[in-house]
Amino acid sequence: MLRMETIQYNLPQNRIPLAWYNIVADLPKPMAPPLHPGTLKPLGPDDLAPLFPMSLIMQEVSTEREIEIPGEVRQVYAQWRPSPLFRARRLEQALDTPAHIYYKNEGVSPAGSHKPNTAVPQAFYNKQAGTKRLSTETGAGQWGSALAMACAFFGMECKVYMVRVSYDQKPYRRALMEVFGASVTASPSSETQTGRAILAAHPDSNGSLGIAISEAVEIAASDPHTKYALGSVLNHVMLHQTVIGLEAIEQMALAGDEPDVILACAGGGSNFAGLTMPYVGRNLKGQSHARIVAVEPAACPSLTKGQFTYDFGDTGHLTPLVKMHTLGSTFMPPGIHAGGLRYHGMAPLVSHVKDLGLIEATAVHQLDAFAAGIQFARAEGIVPAPESNHAIAGAIYEALEAKREGKPRTILFNLSGHGNFDMQSYIDFQAGKLQNYEYPAEEIAMALAGLPTVL
Amino acid sequence: MLRMETIQYNLPQNRIPLAWYNIVADLPKPMAPPLHPGTLKPLGPDDLAPLFPMSLIMQEVSTEREIEIPGEVRQVYAQWRPSPLFRARRLEQALDTPAHIYYKNEGVSPAGSHKPNTAVPQAFYNKQAGTKRLSTETGAGQWGSALAMACAFFGMECKVYMVRVSYDQKPYRRALMEVFGASVTASPSSETQTGRAILAAHPDSNGSLGIAISEAVEIAASDPHTKYALGSVLNHVMLHQTVIGLEAIEQMALAGDEPDVILACAGGGSNFAGLTMPYVGRNLKGQSHARIVAVEPAACPSLTKGQFTYDFGDTGHLTPLVKMHTLGSTFMPPGIHAGGLRYHGMAPLVSHVKDLGLIEATAVHQLDAFAAGIQFARAEGIVPAPESNHAIAGAIYEALEAKREGKPRTILFNLSGHGNFDMQSYIDFQAGKLQNYEYPAEEIAMALAGLPTVL
Repeated sequence: MLRMETIQYNLPQNRIPLAWYNIVADLPKPMAPPLHPGTLKPLGPDDLAPLFPMSLIMQEVSTEREIEIPGEVRQVYAQWRPSPLFRARRLEQALDTPAHIYYKNEGVSPAGSHKPNTAVPQAFYNKQAGTKRLSTETGAGQWGSALAMACAFFGMECKVYMVRVSYDQKPYRRALMEVFGASVTASPSSETQTGRAILAAHPDSNGSLGIAISEAVEIAASDPHTKYALGSVLNHVMLHQTVIGLEAIEQMALAGDEPDVILACAGGGSNFAGLTMPYVGRNLKGQSHARIVAVEPAACPSLTKGQFTYDFGDTGHLTPLVKMHTLGSTFMPPGIHAGGLRYHGMAPLVSHVKDLGLIEATAVHQLDAFAAGIQFARAEGIVPAPESNHAIAGAIYEALEAKREGKPRTILFNLSGHGNFDMQSYIDFQAGKLQNYEYPAEEIAMALAGLPTVL
Repeated sequence: MLRMETIQYNLPQNRIPLAWYNIVADLPKPMAPPLHPGTLKPLGPDDLAPLFPMSLIMQEVSTEREIEIPGEVRQVYAQWRPSPLFRARRLEQALDTPAHIYYKNEGVSPAGSHKPNTAVPQAFYNKQAGTKRLSTETGAGQWGSALAMACAFFGMECKVYMVRVSYDQKPYRRALMEVFGASVTASPSSETQTGRAILAAHPDSNGSLGIAISEAVEIAASDPHTKYALGSVLNHVMLHQTVIGLEAIEQMALAGDEPDVILACAGGGSNFAGLTMPYVGRNLKGQSHARIVAVEPAACPSLTKGQFTYDFGDTGHLTPLVKMHTLGSTFMPPGIHAGGLRYHGMAPLVSHVKDLGLIEATAVHQLDAFAAGIQFARAEGIVPAPESNHAIAGAIYEALEAKREGKPRTILFNLSGHGNFDMQSYIDFQAGKLQNYEYPAEEIAMALAGLPTVL
């Protein structure tokens, strides 16, 4: 009988981490504070109270190293956590590389991505605070599905403003949210002042994430029973995602391997931070020396080409000003299929560790990302989300470098989600209908030139 | 801190079964043999040689109790096996029932259903025998995706004839097969004599599983390098699926619980046999006394309303005659969304154990199945395949019976797959566009009246 090679490293349910890891406690230099857009003074917890419950606001500003995960949240996490760590042995064979390739598979969550890691605690803390309804926006739909599911679990209403173009093009993603009981509205809508104003001026508006955020914030701010939930960018979202990296550290130890390089795709930053912040912390303590690489789309390269400065989180300039790598909040990213990576900025936390030189960043073109995804699917059986394809392209590049050098290299990447709801992009790719986008230098220069000068 | 309740019972990779369980060895009465459609004599192994490699034919006729799973197959199984066993605690709470509800989740396989359990060994044995290409048919698409994936793993070509109406209505399912590298053709096609003849008579034919089978068989029979693969009905397919039940027995022991009733949906029979045959074997040995229930659609009720007699496996009457519960091979099932359950017959093995009184059967209407699926999704987070909804409806019925009686009851069912590629059916259901179908008594009576009298 053939000796079996281990390809899945699994932890039992009782190894779900007891606490999230807050890297803020270990940073050599504190982050720049968010500023009130009116006063330009640092934001206080009360400024956020209309939108978020105080428990989440306290996490947003916390400097504690460990923040306990409530038992109720761990109980829900147990539906799919600890998520499996895979050794991609068939992909290694296909590449004929001496590298070891590992991936953490967040696509096993019921909603299909890493997003439930934060949707569940956000729903929990809101439920605890008496919130009856959560509002949010969604573009690609991974975040909306995750929050819809979390609200179903905790018996809350969920109101999702879905960018009009996605609403029309992705009816199945919308259906998933509706199966979970959410109310999904195409944005811009006639339900809000923001939406009505935009529809009056542009009756055929395709919508944008910026507009959808404004609508979701508006109904949360105007209804005491409704709060707002955001799926990326904020510190507490990064925090919740660290379960990914904390589990991965244990699983890599099970595998008896230590990563030389760790990769994840980066849009708003939560999937990247989730896998890598626990490793950044280990590097800071001298416990490891892994290179940590954010992989972003060449068409929307905030970390590799953006400016590290204060900017708005949304196109409509309603949010606080945060210091981050940004392409300019008025920059409209080209229509790549990795909708979750089409964001002008980057989480302030991720931007800060990049600025400190604790992580690297690289950019990948769309066609290379899809080619990598298809190679991965044929070797590993999983069709990845278009966002995850960026991390895969990065990992394959590293594996081929190791082959060129003729040296081993241990690679770990995060498979942020599956692509079951993104098959149209694969159809278009295989039919030769997708394109690479030149780096939109002029548009970005213009958007950056228009940034507010606040400090 | 809250004490966590266990909801996932997982086995490590080295607990993937070493052998499949062949219930034929333990049956109190042998099965009736398949007959050659020309001679009406029992079929010999050589009759099947043009279509299948000899190793699979030997499994088809084997009376050995245990058949070793090749190491190479276990190695691929490890990509998703052992699949998790869940305790559906949130569903139990939602139903307010004293029953314990467990489900084996086969939706975690890369292709999204139980089908890879047999696709992988079929591809392996074919590869071993020198087969260059596998041909098959697919309706709903779960089987085609699984075989496409297995062929990608073993470096073989895969040719899928996809029923025309599915080909047009389910482009994303087709895209999944193409991502895995399969060649997918709408059936009827101009590539085969059968297809051309049908297109000449009916240029706008929607196709049917029966026609697609004929096309796939025709190209396999006419090319020495191409063999044919079937995703259900045959003994060796039932055999491969027994990994589900073998794992479940170990996992239920981990949970410290013993099922009182075991349910699975039944179309061709492979998902049902996979979970339940190992339990039927235990019942026969007196090791357990579980009720075992096949749940089928009321619109296509072969086990509950069919006749146990010899019939053809396909509409075109090209296959051998097998003794099974059948609604008549010319019966065209109504257009329910659970495409995997739209089959006029039932696996001879499942039919035989039903005839011996070792299992029960019940039928569920389409609207009840979808309502159960949505209740399940909101409690457990997983959107089930329309086929699986039948098992869920059966499990919920049992749980409510337990509540009515005020007694505990341990329920185990098989979640055969996820519904990520079936969202249109949920959209239609939620929009009130689906209907129940009356039991098509007259059509079935006519089809049964036309059966061949062979014995």
